[in-house]
Amino acid sequence: MKIRNPRTGEMDYEIPDFTNDQVKQICDDLRSNQSAWAGGSVQYRINILQDWKSAVAKHETALIEALTIDTGRIWETKLEVQIVASSIDRWCGIAASFFTEEVQHSSSIPFIKLQQSLVPFELIGVISPWNFPLLLSLIDTIPALLAGCAVVVKPSEVTPRFIAVMQNIIDEVPALKKVLAYIPGDGKVGADLVQQADLICFTGSTSTGKKVYDAASKKMIPVFLELGGKDPAIVLESANLSLAAKAIAWGSTANAGQSCLSIERIYIQDKVFDSFVPLLVDEANDLLINANNIAHGEIGPIIFEKQAAIINEHLKDALEKGAQILTGSTHCELINGGYYCKPTVLINVTHEMKIMTEETFGPIMPVMKFDTKEEGIELANGTIYGLSAAVFAGTIEEAMEFGKHIHGGAISINDAALTAIMHEGEKNSFKMSGIGGTRMGPSAIKRFMRQKVFIIKDQPIVAPWTSAKFRSS
Amino acid sequence: MKIRNPRTGEMDYEIPDFTNDQVKQICDDLRSNQSAWAGGSVQYRINILQDWKSAVAKHETALIEALTIDTGRIWETKLEVQIVASSIDRWCGIAASFFTEEVQHSSSIPFIKLQQSLVPFELIGVISPWNFPLLLSLIDTIPALLAGCAVVVKPSEVTPRFIAVMQNIIDEVPALKKVLAYIPGDGKVGADLVQQADLICFTGSTSTGKKVYDAASKKMIPVFLELGGKDPAIVLESANLSLAAKAIAWGSTANAGQSCLSIERIYIQDKVFDSFVPLLVDEANDLLINANNIAHGEIGPIIFEKQAAIINEHLKDALEKGAQILTGSTHCELINGGYYCKPTVLINVTHEMKIMTEETFGPIMPVMKFDTKEEGIELANGTIYGLSAAVFAGTIEEAMEFGKHIHGGAISINDAALTAIMHEGEKNSFKMSGIGGTRMGPSAIKRFMRQKVFIIKDQPIVAPWTSAKFRSS
Repeated sequence: MKIRNPRTGEMDYEIPDFTNDQVKQICDDLRSNQSAWAGGSVQYRINILQDWKSAVAKHETALIEALTIDTGRIWETKLEVQIVASSIDRWCGIAASFFTEEVQHSSSIPFIKLQQSLVPFELIGVISPWNFPLLLSLIDTIPALLAGCAVVVKPSEVTPRFIAVMQNIIDEVPALKKVLAYIPGDGKVGADLVQQADLICFTGSTSTGKKVYDAASKKMIPVFLELGGKDPAIVLESANLSLAAKAIAWGSTANAGQSCLSIERIYIQDKVFDSFVPLLVDEANDLLINANNIAHGEIGPIIFEKQAAIINEHLKDALEKGAQILTGSTHCELINGGYYCKPTVLINVTHEMKIMTEETFGPIMPVMKFDTKEEGIELANGTIYGLSAAVFAGTIEEAMEFGKHIHGGAISINDAALTAIMHEGEKNSFKMSGIGGTRMGPSAIKRFMRQKVFIIKDQPIVAPWTSAKFRSS
Repeated sequence: MKIRNPRTGEMDYEIPDFTNDQVKQICDDLRSNQSAWAGGSVQYRINILQDWKSAVAKHETALIEALTIDTGRIWETKLEVQIVASSIDRWCGIAASFFTEEVQHSSSIPFIKLQQSLVPFELIGVISPWNFPLLLSLIDTIPALLAGCAVVVKPSEVTPRFIAVMQNIIDEVPALKKVLAYIPGDGKVGADLVQQADLICFTGSTSTGKKVYDAASKKMIPVFLELGGKDPAIVLESANLSLAAKAIAWGSTANAGQSCLSIERIYIQDKVFDSFVPLLVDEANDLLINANNIAHGEIGPIIFEKQAAIINEHLKDALEKGAQILTGSTHCELINGGYYCKPTVLINVTHEMKIMTEETFGPIMPVMKFDTKEEGIELANGTIYGLSAAVFAGTIEEAMEFGKHIHGGAISINDAALTAIMHEGEKNSFKMSGIGGTRMGPSAIKRFMRQKVFIIKDQPIVAPWTSAKFRSS
């Protein structure tokens, strides 16, 4: 399978086509090694992950090189690689306190004792997307490995160049290689993986997520889905407008808008709308596309060709329905073979337009005004998504009170898209943005384990209910 | 729809056929009341549930009467009704400590604070089975109500007589009536409920559970499935055989074997097989069917006609393949219009027989011998199910060491089916026995809520990452 280069448009890379049998073989091998992995102590697994961290550091340059071609960007790529070490350290810190098993007396029946234990799922399948190829291939993988699972990762075929580098890194840590594999491939390979795994983690579009959920339901395995978002930013009239404009511009355009947690809709309270919009336009005008020099300019290419078509479709639909562009592009421009979209501020937008209700995944900032807070809440909740949101107000209390009504798992207060940098809070996706447990905090490790309880009768006496006769007495 | 009486075989009851529109109307009404219910304090919800408890107590006689006809049994029915009060009290006790929200400082970013909160799913659909019609209609309903959800319960059409009584009871607690409804109906009404609910709890067969999971996946809502079991009891040669025989006889025959947590397979270590079997036969012979007098005899009718056919099929299959009955029945006997199955001990059984691998749901005790512990573990894990198990050994340590290898969420140590009486341990189902979170303990309430985090920037300064420019610096 030939792979496109996002900056040149050339099909300059190729990935092998794994057959169903090959996928099965890899999964079978890893599963057969899983019980030894789980049977070791958590400290053993922490040590192996620390070895992995060191191996990543050793091959940092190769990883950055591959990912830079995959995504056509440099700053975010360096950040992605840099985050591996801190992610491994953070998860190891959380995992260290797990797995303490102790017998406890029942509080309701005096001669019964209980012991809880945690039993990892055997083989986790991770299907990860192209927008943060490395980061999102690890977000479920690291806690799953620490839980004691084996993991097969199938990153997106749009950005597969880093896979070979990562597999080389894994090969250098033999104990890890036994329970972790990265395999390239498209949706077919992903579907094959669902058939082999005991639990599936999927990050990607809601439409593909539905297919994964359907396949998992037919196989009767659990699934964790992290899907699309259409995150709103809401600016109340009491807010610091300059701060809000800066934060929203960042939240909307970072990684050229190709983040699930990007701000995709901006709602400004009536009274401050006219003051706010020029501030946002100024911020947008400060940001340049980097088509001619990857190291100069904030806005990289739209990585996935089909995504550029979606952005174009949303812009076209909005313009046809009366939206007005204050700065930016009417469509993604093709420069040197890559697609680039300027930070674009739109007004006169409505919820009749795709750009206000469907995931755009570009550096687009449609701004709409609202009157009362009730109206603002209704607009903020007016999509099928419920990932996260940002609220700006004069006080934290006012912003939080407003945020309580928003359907979303994370509400940034007086800043935008804070989940990009803050990994402490536990959160779930609302509505069509996902299914299943939080990816943050201790619960994220527990997701990969079944709870098991030993119920211990600690006396040789025969309690009344162990005799069938009791029931008729 | 006409309903059969399990003791007489007569079609002596009728339930209305709810249309899809009627189901939708009920769901819409309840959902519209949910935010006020969730918006009240947990103490308010506890108070309303205590009112419900009192109303149940007031109508205890009517509830017992209806359930007795539904199930054809009296002892278990009294227990079911009695358990309502203790269940409500137990869940209220657990819920009281929830919902404390406090702002905490981030440990990784100094000027960020976090506040976690819990947001209930709006409308829960509960689809419950006929084997414990009341108890299993409440097991998810009570924690969901305390979480702040509205709940629509659709109990099995096999045992629907208690529904009208329960709805009358609910009608007497107006605040509860706004967020809780019991509706009668068959699988079609269940399917309609899946289309309306925001989260589905299903207890029943694995085959129907698959359909529910499939429907939930297409609607992109979460699902909790508690499905079939084929629980093994394992007796190691060091065990107290007399205690094991008593406990296993109870675990296999209580409620005529119509419990998901019934012991359905018995594995005895070689050396003690010949000593154990006569003890179990003696226990079985002590238990009598109560066809002629509901108050005399431990073994009630097989409630569901189709289940009697399954039991017959499993027995026939086993006998054809060489099994030998030491005591009991070759098939369910039809007495006065009801189907009854004597406690039946079988030897010469193998895993080629349905009776050792498929859920039988009758008072059947197939006993098989094994040599090494490894062989015992392999046999215990040799079905598609993984609900619970019982292990008997000379010491707790030996039994627990063995139990660690068994696929199952609850392992009773030196007793059988302890999950029937012990509700403290948190546990998950393994393999085809279920999907989703534990029904016991605090986590069972948390299942019905999404976690939401407020991420608060608590300083007016503009941090570097709020400026898009930062990314290229």
